[in-house]
Amino acid sequence: MPVGTQATVKTLHPDEVERVGFRLVLANAFHLYLRPGPDVIAEAGGLHRFMGWPHALLTDSGGFQVFSLSELRKVSEEGVSFRSPHDGSSHFLTPEAVISVQELLGSDIMMPLDECLPYPCDEAHARESVRMTCRWAERSKDAVRGDRPVFGISQGGTYPDLRREGVERLLDIGFPGYAIGGVSVGETSEQGLAVVEMTAAWLPRDKPRYVMGVGEPCDMLRAIALGADMFDCVMPTRNARNGCAFTADGRLVVRNGRYARDGRPIEEGCACPVCARFTRSYVRHLFHAGEVLGLRLVTEHNLHFMMNLTRRAREAITQDRYDAFVNDFISRFQAGDERRTLRGER
Amino acid sequence: MPVGTQATVKTLHPDEVERVGFRLVLANAFHLYLRPGPDVIAEAGGLHRFMGWPHALLTDSGGFQVFSLSELRKVSEEGVSFRSPHDGSSHFLTPEAVISVQELLGSDIMMPLDECLPYPCDEAHARESVRMTCRWAERSKDAVRGDRPVFGISQGGTYPDLRREGVERLLDIGFPGYAIGGVSVGETSEQGLAVVEMTAAWLPRDKPRYVMGVGEPCDMLRAIALGADMFDCVMPTRNARNGCAFTADGRLVVRNGRYARDGRPIEEGCACPVCARFTRSYVRHLFHAGEVLGLRLVTEHNLHFMMNLTRRAREAITQDRYDAFVNDFISRFQAGDERRTLRGER
Repeated sequence: MPVGTQATVKTLHPDEVERVGFRLVLANAFHLYLRPGPDVIAEAGGLHRFMGWPHALLTDSGGFQVFSLSELRKVSEEGVSFRSPHDGSSHFLTPEAVISVQELLGSDIMMPLDECLPYPCDEAHARESVRMTCRWAERSKDAVRGDRPVFGISQGGTYPDLRREGVERLLDIGFPGYAIGGVSVGETSEQGLAVVEMTAAWLPRDKPRYVMGVGEPCDMLRAIALGADMFDCVMPTRNARNGCAFTADGRLVVRNGRYARDGRPIEEGCACPVCARFTRSYVRHLFHAGEVLGLRLVTEHNLHFMMNLTRRAREAITQDRYDAFVNDFISRFQAGDERRTLRGER
Repeated sequence: MPVGTQATVKTLHPDEVERVGFRLVLANAFHLYLRPGPDVIAEAGGLHRFMGWPHALLTDSGGFQVFSLSELRKVSEEGVSFRSPHDGSSHFLTPEAVISVQELLGSDIMMPLDECLPYPCDEAHARESVRMTCRWAERSKDAVRGDRPVFGISQGGTYPDLRREGVERLLDIGFPGYAIGGVSVGETSEQGLAVVEMTAAWLPRDKPRYVMGVGEPCDMLRAIALGADMFDCVMPTRNARNGCAFTADGRLVVRNGRYARDGRPIEEGCACPVCARFTRSYVRHLFHAGEVLGLRLVTEHNLHFMMNLTRRAREAITQDRYDAFVNDFISRFQAGDERRTLRGER
């Protein structure tokens, strides 16, 4: 899923996101609750109509965002109180209220409020937290008024026992899909993948398994091997705005002087409309000149890259050659990154 | 002409500019000379290919921009020396060099280097300047190596005698089109239009008369009545990025709180793709959230507005009801502006 936190996949028009091939976009209930407010979006006929996106929307509850406020929030069994980073106003959100917000938005897949633990986190705190997150998950399920699905979210940091306990509790409650939260929060790739590996194995194979916040191409492919089905990540869009383009040969820093006269597309052999039309030289110029079109072009390319990667992964799985596919992809991607690092490009 | 100073109409993809209906875009030889450099663009196969624009390009010489550098430039009969605002490097441009740059870019209509006088400007200085600008125009014409057209540019401030002298000199040299420069440089609308009126009347009716830097909708319509055929202006695109949308009822400030829940398009009755799809409420949200899509949407709308306005002007001229059309447009546009000013919106 491309990330459309504030009801827009940054820099892109919904037609462009659709053209890349995405049919599910993530938006953030917490951000939209604060601005423009769920009532504004409900009055507009829901989030799909508000943002002009005719396909499916998953809304994150904003647990991750609330807990990123650190100094500005206070957690209790009942819910979380916090101050708006926009205007300092006080808010109190319960699991029930967060479901209600997502129902107002008209989300197709809702996420419950959860406590997203930082890394590292001591085990006693993590134990209390994961138990509360499971109680919140149950309250969230009970709070659903219509028939929109809400997923369960596994937390528990890097502690196998806590992850296990949490997953068992979620399975007891029963959800139409399960998310693995609390990865990509400061731990290493290997630690995160270890969490995905154990957790995905405990989750039912016939329900979507969604790894939240993962989208680094190599990590995503590895997580797919471990059973993950869904992902969201700001990386393709955020990297793009920093002038970092994904290619099969690793990350290309478009601002680099070596591309000043490079008449090749961002990625040779790429079938995306950006690569069909514009050169590295032009994209580099746009970034140096501070032109918005540069942000757009690299964003569109990176989303196309991710979509193409998942298509190829799906194909490799059905042809029973997924491991070889992943190994080939990762070694080429990382070799490209290393080459660029060695020559001082990154 | 929409303005694509740095080889991009700000925030838009060339397909979008084309879809609005434009077939001629202005780019700036001075800016592109400094960055990325004419050789980079020539290597790319010219400016059209570099920026992915398949239609015509007019390149401004950058006279206006050089003279905006004030402290950083020094003018002599031979040309102008200046320091790059990007890196402080020293440059010297002659009229011949500026033509050569535009030929490297592959411009379809070239503009000669001219001295764009500020307003106010004393008459003795203006006299010397306009004579030099005419000598530069002749040198520019002589410098053309291929068959690309170069226009003559009228200068002379608000002094009728100097304007007259300059135009006569340009007509002696002979150009395939004529521009009226030095308007929109600080004088009032009325003073600028008075210059357009006298100058356009002296210029041949069978050659394009191009008023540089004018694009305020009412001023543009008035200038058309005086014989002007071509315009360029950053106003539609720059205003858009400041959240100011053009409508038949004047300028609409999209950030305004009154639009928070307004489910209408930016302009009711507008046939542009932005108005067909998005509401004021959503566009306002995008601006408040600092989202790039907001800039894009208002830019596209404003360009559509200008294109539609020129279409309607053309139609009114052929139907011999231009004066009534202009009066109706201006009174409605200004009444809308006044209404919004009164209620504190602008």
